[in-house]
Amino acid sequence: MTVKTTVNGVDVDKLMETIDLLGRQPELGTFKFRTNNSWIDGTYNRAENPSALGPAASERAVPHTHDIDEPPVLLGEDRGANPVEYLLAGLSGCVTTTFIAYAAAQGVKIDELRTELDGDIDVRAFLGITHDVRPGYQSIRIKFHVKSDAPEAKIRELMKLAERRSPVAESVRNGVPLEFTLA
Amino acid sequence: MTVKTTVNGVDVDKLMETIDLLGRQPELGTFKFRTNNSWIDGTYNRAENPSALGPAASERAVPHTHDIDEPPVLLGEDRGANPVEYLLAGLSGCVTTTFIAYAAAQGVKIDELRTELDGDIDVRAFLGITHDVRPGYQSIRIKFHVKSDAPEAKIRELMKLAERRSPVAESVRNGVPLEFTLA
Repeated sequence: MTVKTTVNGVDVDKLMETIDLLGRQPELGTFKFRTNNSWIDGTYNRAENPSALGPAASERAVPHTHDIDEPPVLLGEDRGANPVEYLLAGLSGCVTTTFIAYAAAQGVKIDELRTELDGDIDVRAFLGITHDVRPGYQSIRIKFHVKSDAPEAKIRELMKLAERRSPVAESVRNGVPLEFTLA
Repeated sequence: MTVKTTVNGVDVDKLMETIDLLGRQPELGTFKFRTNNSWIDGTYNRAENPSALGPAASERAVPHTHDIDEPPVLLGEDRGANPVEYLLAGLSGCVTTTFIAYAAAQGVKIDELRTELDGDIDVRAFLGITHDVRPGYQSIRIKFHVKSDAPEAKIRELMKLAERRSPVAESVRNGVPLEFTLA
């Protein structure tokens, strides 16, 4: 008979086994994530995530799909969140999962976790009206709301881990080389 | 009687009016985009985009929601795309819309546009197994598939505009300051 150790809904035994396995076989840690996007009309397009490709990953039977559009004020019909909102969504999910996973690994029970994100963009740069501001986000704020019996110092330590080790947070903070090619 | 000028599904008259308006009233270009995320269980959480907040933006009646999870190999149940896939989805939508909008503004008709993105992550850094690689994307490739009667030089010029002026592409390439706070 085996007892499964689960904290915050994370299977801690499997997490530790994964850490042990990737420590011994580093090549299993290499993932290639993918998105295919098809333009539909105007500001409307659809992205699909077919799978993570990696030595230890498998194809999805059905890809996850995302409808992407702009609100009317930005010439769309709001048939989906817009691209910069998708970036915030991914960022919110990543800091959440990183926080929860590290809490689980340390045996820290979290009762509730919400995050509120907001970021500033001056759309004049996108529209080519000015070159005095960047087209992207000028800054992004991430506010954590945490319910837990753990001391505040522990919560702040977990937030710091989420800030440093979340793949999306680290990508967005430090930047990623992008390579554009024409098929 | 008015004739509406639409190219690639983009209302070019409205686009030019918007550019003219924001040129005269720069404060209307300032947007605040938002995401609220609620952790559900383990690697599963849900992000909501309630609206873009800006002088010219309005609340949505119903927010766009995004289920976020990890695949089984990363301790989840694949109830949604994972956070780093959401980043790619947003990036794909942003370069697509930027390309299409600039083509429309220049009267360049695009018959078809697809993009394929992939990016490399070594999950050992996220798991704290190594500090020799970054937790985020090491690089991201974006391949354009374009059907259009326009000459290849024009397509490459539009791709360059998408690379430079897409808010998500510019954010991800150059990085964005992130500010974490505890409520």
